[in-house]
Amino acid sequence: MPSNVRIIGLDPGLRHTGWAVLDCQNYKFSFVAAGVISSTDSLKLEERLLELYQGLIQIMDQYHPDEAAIEEVFVNKNPQSTLKLGQARGIVLLVPTIKNVKVSTYTPNQIKKAVVGVGHAEKKQVDMMVHALVPTVGRLKADASDALAMAICHSYMRTTNFRMNKITEMMSK
Amino acid sequence: MPSNVRIIGLDPGLRHTGWAVLDCQNYKFSFVAAGVISSTDSLKLEERLLELYQGLIQIMDQYHPDEAAIEEVFVNKNPQSTLKLGQARGIVLLVPTIKNVKVSTYTPNQIKKAVVGVGHAEKKQVDMMVHALVPTVGRLKADASDALAMAICHSYMRTTNFRMNKITEMMSK
Repeated sequence: MPSNVRIIGLDPGLRHTGWAVLDCQNYKFSFVAAGVISSTDSLKLEERLLELYQGLIQIMDQYHPDEAAIEEVFVNKNPQSTLKLGQARGIVLLVPTIKNVKVSTYTPNQIKKAVVGVGHAEKKQVDMMVHALVPTVGRLKADASDALAMAICHSYMRTTNFRMNKITEMMSK
Repeated sequence: MPSNVRIIGLDPGLRHTGWAVLDCQNYKFSFVAAGVISSTDSLKLEERLLELYQGLIQIMDQYHPDEAAIEEVFVNKNPQSTLKLGQARGIVLLVPTIKNVKVSTYTPNQIKKAVVGVGHAEKKQVDMMVHALVPTVGRLKADASDALAMAICHSYMRTTNFRMNKITEMMSK
């Protein structure tokens, strides 16, 4: 498993999808770029999904990440919101897969634990730690900062995941 | 608005997405093709979404429909099921839009009303009417038959929708 890796973190949403690209070399981070893909509220749902798809394709083509990290969705109490988020998340899972980039998913608690050290950290604490770990990042919109937290989480977890998969493979033989 | 139109009906689902292509000329139907895109249960979610995406792209490229009809989702009581369906539906809305094919959506009641005449028809009645209206169709899987019902519904509704949009446009000037 290569220790130099370019990770894209993605925080899916129909209105705003945060993204952040991070180079990692033996747990040293080098910030590449981050931003938010916003869809146009006044457009029809399928046109908004197309905006999201095209935005993601452009970012993948520009930054060529090796691996992607996406948050496990946290099911909303409002079923209509869950459905909207699901539709956007479908696109966010699809695009890296089209580009042959492996996707890993993490729960909000796994992300907080990896970045702050505790699973029930506040959003503000996560944002502060993101800035402490990647000081060159500057000011980020909330969704982009969340995406960067996912990329950081994946940089810590990917070695563990890799070992776990190897063990599972060996045990199933 | 052209009266000769090739419509694709799409019934989204993560496991099975039904599709049906129908040529319509002044309310006369000519059946083209129908089927079901199934995703592999054992694969990861993003790989299943990719299977759905690739299956849909292939069908769009093979049959070149002019317009698409998709069911409005019926939000499930189980939020996890709603999320799964949402993710698949995101892809089903996206693919025609990538191909520049206009999408119209209909509620289950609109579809039943258009095909059977009553909004609360049984699934079996809808299937019987689909076969009566398009006798050349032969045996279809349930998801493909539902997709064909959507295409029939759209063939009836598209003229009304077109007129309604014209009126709305005129009133907003």
